[in-house]
Amino acid sequence: MEIKTLKELYTDLLRDMVSGEKQMIEALPKMAEASDTPELQQAFTGHLAETKGQLQRLEQIFSMLGENPSGETCDAMKGLVKEGKKVIDHVKVEEVRDAGLIAAGQKVEHYEIGSYGTLIAMAKLLGETQQAQLLEQTLKEEKAADQKLNNIAVNHVNKLAANVRSQKAA
Amino acid sequence: MEIKTLKELYTDLLRDMVSGEKQMIEALPKMAEASDTPELQQAFTGHLAETKGQLQRLEQIFSMLGENPSGETCDAMKGLVKEGKKVIDHVKVEEVRDAGLIAAGQKVEHYEIGSYGTLIAMAKLLGETQQAQLLEQTLKEEKAADQKLNNIAVNHVNKLAANVRSQKAA
Repeated sequence: MEIKTLKELYTDLLRDMVSGEKQMIEALPKMAEASDTPELQQAFTGHLAETKGQLQRLEQIFSMLGENPSGETCDAMKGLVKEGKKVIDHVKVEEVRDAGLIAAGQKVEHYEIGSYGTLIAMAKLLGETQQAQLLEQTLKEEKAADQKLNNIAVNHVNKLAANVRSQKAA
Repeated sequence: MEIKTLKELYTDLLRDMVSGEKQMIEALPKMAEASDTPELQQAFTGHLAETKGQLQRLEQIFSMLGENPSGETCDAMKGLVKEGKKVIDHVKVEEVRDAGLIAAGQKVEHYEIGSYGTLIAMAKLLGETQQAQLLEQTLKEEKAADQKLNNIAVNHVNKLAANVRSQKAA
């Protein structure tokens, strides 16, 4: 399928995010379940609820555009989810696994921050102010989710994971 | 292979970046070649040179760690590269393709910014100050590369791509 206009490119990139958010809706409960720190579990569970809202916003944008939101697979998110799964499969020491889950989660958030940033710029250029506003709400949530994961890492999990060296790994 | 310590997790995530940067060294010349705007071509070519230096820094870190840098495949980067390839394959109108290449490039940069941010935090926790400094140089370059792509998008390419609507797509 050939893309000829900025609007078609924008719509295609939006479809990618529909696929990405759907993949996260599948992955986040597993990441929450694999988390040992209650704070981290809550962060993933809370972000799951937010992600469902982000998907609804995207569907709302598609109904404004009169386009079908389905049909794309976000390959980047597929890879990101696979990286999170690797952590769950290969890291059995709880504190270290939590640090790995945070790393995987922050990679996802950064990816999404980059993607929504581009989409907002394109929406504005296309004069789709209302869509830009909806996407900005999502971007704000993604940034806050990244910050929350960062705080958990800095305040708690990474320190625990470093301490584990002398205990379990000896 | 089981990961038991933060240091092993850190080393594993570093290996992921070795794979990621190698994939970008393959992809960037194709992205440069597919670019129509000279400024964008130069941005990709310039970042290719930087990326080679980033790979060398990672190899330097592995020699400090006394570990092998190979053995991981970065699945997220595989997906990101595939998204860039999709743009090259499906967008034939130059200005729109440039906008798509910038979007793909910025997704990569954001992914890398997230990854290196995590690695720096872990290096510091592990007391690997010199490694943290090397990674910080790379992070600075990734942020600058993202900013450069953003400036090209805002100042030039996206406007061209929007104008294309009324010309080629009619």
